[in-house]
Amino acid sequence: MNTLLLVAHGSRRAASNDEVRELTETVRRDNRDFDAVECAFLELAEPSIPDALRMLIARGAERIVVLPYFLSAGRHVAEDIPHEIDIVAREHPGVEIRQAPYLGASPGVVDLLLKQSAR
Amino acid sequence: MNTLLLVAHGSRRAASNDEVRELTETVRRDNRDFDAVECAFLELAEPSIPDALRMLIARGAERIVVLPYFLSAGRHVAEDIPHEIDIVAREHPGVEIRQAPYLGASPGVVDLLLKQSAR
Repeated sequence: MNTLLLVAHGSRRAASNDEVRELTETVRRDNRDFDAVECAFLELAEPSIPDALRMLIARGAERIVVLPYFLSAGRHVAEDIPHEIDIVAREHPGVEIRQAPYLGASPGVVDLLLKQSAR
Repeated sequence: MNTLLLVAHGSRRAASNDEVRELTETVRRDNRDFDAVECAFLELAEPSIPDALRMLIARGAERIVVLPYFLSAGRHVAEDIPHEIDIVAREHPGVEIRQAPYLGASPGVVDLLLKQSAR
């Protein structure tokens, strides 16, 4: 079972967290690669990254791609998210958990910005 | 003269701000719609939004699209950026300054996430 976990920073503003949850639903509906798509938050919202990873594993995940919904390669992307992943990876050495590059690292961001500038 | 101003939050981490500046260079190089493309930061980095707008106007900008490089529609996007724009719009009523929807509002984000998950 191949799964995707979108990880956002999390906000004190509930609407921002709900935006991430809605985006997750859209990705779940539109994708063909993953049997399950969930989201998690680094802080300020639930579920946490370890909780979401454990939930996916309990549902049968054998492979989990963790995708940081972040625009820049700060400490959160470089240190905090890998640390959270590592906690669960040690508990479940048989599960492949891979961190994909953060959203802002995508070359497609340029096109998206240009399209957005015309809206 | 048609111009684009990318607005990022700004970070204490210089590398994050430089990432935005590099992205701005790529957009400047790749786009066909804008005669000038610059970036500005809401806080923690330079130039500020008013300074960048005034600089574009001094260079002859008649139309400026302000595009928030943000993933969620928080207070920054809904209140702070419009407020900063308004300061300069009042000084230069003949210049059209329009705020485009923030990056995270783009329907293309879903595809980008799915592509990124395969990298």
